[in-house]
Amino acid sequence: MEAFSDGVFAIAITLLILNIAVPDSTPGRLAHDLLAQWPSYLAYIASFLLIGIYWVNHHAMFRKIAHTDRGLLFANLLFLMSIAFMPFPTAVLARFLRAGHDQRTAAVVYGLAAWLAALTFVAIWIYAARRRQLLRGDLGDRESAVMTLQTLGGPAVYLAAIGVAFINPVAALVVYTLVPVFYIVAGRGWGA
Amino acid sequence: MEAFSDGVFAIAITLLILNIAVPDSTPGRLAHDLLAQWPSYLAYIASFLLIGIYWVNHHAMFRKIAHTDRGLLFANLLFLMSIAFMPFPTAVLARFLRAGHDQRTAAVVYGLAAWLAALTFVAIWIYAARRRQLLRGDLGDRESAVMTLQTLGGPAVYLAAIGVAFINPVAALVVYTLVPVFYIVAGRGWGA
Amino acid sequence: MEAFSDGVFAIAITLLILNIAVPDSTPGRLAHDLLAQWPSYLAYIASFLLIGIYWVNHHAMFRKIAHTDRGLLFANLLFLMSIAFMPFPTAVLARFLRAGHDQRTAAVVYGLAAWLAALTFVAIWIYAARRRQLLRGDLGDRESAVMTLQTLGGPAVYLAAIGVAFINPVAALVVYTLVPVFYIVAGRGWGA
Amino acid sequence: MEAFSDGVFAIAITLLILNIAVPDSTPGRLAHDLLAQWPSYLAYIASFLLIGIYWVNHHAMFRKIAHTDRGLLFANLLFLMSIAFMPFPTAVLARFLRAGHDQRTAAVVYGLAAWLAALTFVAIWIYAARRRQLLRGDLGDRESAVMTLQTLGGPAVYLAAIGVAFINPVAALVVYTLVPVFYIVAGRGWGA
Repeated sequence: MEAFSDGVFAIAITLLILNIAVPDSTPGRLAHDLLAQWPSYLAYIASFLLIGIYWVNHHAMFRKIAHTDRGLLFANLLFLMSIAFMPFPTAVLARFLRAGHDQRTAAVVYGLAAWLAALTFVAIWIYAARRRQLLRGDLGDRESAVMTLQTLGGPAVYLAAIGVAFINPVAALVVYTLVPVFYIVAGRGWGA
Repeated sequence: MEAFSDGVFAIAITLLILNIAVPDSTPGRLAHDLLAQWPSYLAYIASFLLIGIYWVNHHAMFRKIAHTDRGLLFANLLFLMSIAFMPFPTAVLARFLRAGHDQRTAAVVYGLAAWLAALTFVAIWIYAARRRQLLRGDLGDRESAVMTLQTLGGPAVYLAAIGVAFINPVAALVVYTLVPVFYIVAGRGWGA
Repeated sequence: MEAFSDGVFAIAITLLILNIAVPDSTPGRLAHDLLAQWPSYLAYIASFLLIGIYWVNHHAMFRKIAHTDRGLLFANLLFLMSIAFMPFPTAVLARFLRAGHDQRTAAVVYGLAAWLAALTFVAIWIYAARRRQLLRGDLGDRESAVMTLQTLGGPAVYLAAIGVAFINPVAALVVYTLVPVFYIVAGRGWGA
Repeated sequence: MEAFSDGVFAIAITLLILNIAVPDSTPGRLAHDLLAQWPSYLAYIASFLLIGIYWVNHHAMFRKIAHTDRGLLFANLLFLMSIAFMPFPTAVLARFLRAGHDQRTAAVVYGLAAWLAALTFVAIWIYAARRRQLLRGDLGDRESAVMTLQTLGGPAVYLAAIGVAFINPVAALVVYTLVPVFYIVAGRGWGA
């Protein structure tokens, strides 16, 4: 299961670049046009880091899980489906931040997609934690509860980010980019 | 062979997102336009689950096969070719369900592609089961016959779904989405 | 090196589907338009089988090679570059066979690309075979010479196919599809 | 970490082909149009070799690193982000060298992207080398310093290439292609 999940992570993260289009510049305008699509670069960074962090956390989570059953496979498939979906809201966000209209809708859609990924990630853990026979034998109740709290941080953060998106879509893009950076620099649960 | 097959599964499943286009919305229309392309999301879910299930079942099948020969490699290549083909009928189905014309053709084409994948999956097993030296030594005749019946369920279900597509193309999309869900929740042969 | 090569094979083979476009059909024309792009399906099959066979043969070749050096890595990289290139001539062939003009050019371009892949595959083996310390110790001179002859079959066949392309481009597409099938059914060197 | 990195390398290198478009030729013009997009082929070769070399060097570097921590994972993620970014400047370079305007901008952008990849590659090593507990125990100070010098060669070379790009963009494309070739044929640090 991990090899397949790794593949989906690696492909989804690398497909993000296909969202950045070569500008159709008139003579002398390429530099300007490249700079003007800064939302595309920021959205690329935000989603690259988001998927990269889930990849690390997914590995860390499955180090705590010793066995799989049908339900866990299904939960994992739903999570991978939401990870593989991220290139689409990333493209929507970049396109409409630049277009100058429907920015709020685009920023909220991105937040909802990231929130969905966070929720399905929680679902994997909740499913496993309620079936102790799936977890590693030496995992204590306390460690399991701490893990539950940590994974719940994801949906909470993205719910707050959606709130920012309603108020200021450009600020939301900055938040989407900084959340993974902050998480890497300061967060717990980073599995190495 | 499994590493290569895993790669094709993971890439085909992740490429599905490229079929969902960013709408070219006029101001204020993004939310509406995103909702209007619901067939794309449903088709994405249907094909993601379909490929995900084949990935699990492919592993389960190859746990019963101990050796490979040239014919088995060729059968597996034909199966992978039909899996890697799925993003195309998925895009056709989503586009024409939304276009409001040629819906029946699109739904039947999707069903035929899924049926082809199911048939080539059966072909791998039939080929191996007729050459007992390829199967694991401890696999009984009865277990082998049960496996044959289980794999034959795939083509049967998609033949029925094609029938639905002739009658009601939108219902067929719902069936295409529910078949994998039902299979995961209730089906046998799910290999974990 | 094999894990990386496997990845390139699996991705190149799965990207082929992106060459098949959803037709922009007017009402009632989808079935006709889907059938009219038969060169796309045939070219998809031809290139899928071609890459699939190289994947198997590449593994078979590297089972005979025990060590790698800088030159071998470079030769392998050139070979992978020509494999990863195949989606482009595949798209050219499908587009212009259907366009009804420049068919000869398109068919020759495909043949040249396949010939290049065959040549670089030979180059890997020639490079290794001339440095006996790279080969497995138990590999006899005779077995090594047989392998050289077998790999040389590839460039020879595609040179002949280019000849066919000059005379009849549609026949060339059929040849490009049948060469891998014939190779799988009857060929030697198929490594399983 | 290496499996995921390998995946990103393999996918980024194979996605490069999507930048080469099938020309929309009028009758009798396909051969001419295919030849006219020579910058696309050269840029494909340059980026394919560049990513291929980083793949080999990345493996060689991580053979010297025994442990990972959060910072190393983050540095590696930034490096992979810049590798996965390469298809975009590759497309920009090919498009505008052919367009005949904004060539300098396009060539400088490519150089900056390659320079960024080289810098983040250095960052991984500097980070690890300053934390001796991350390195393999038997790695001497001298070997570590030599490695630092070698990795610093990358940013230096691409800084020089950016200088060439300012003077002559077409010459820069040739330099971008020859740097990896020269590196493979003559360079040190090639890890096999």
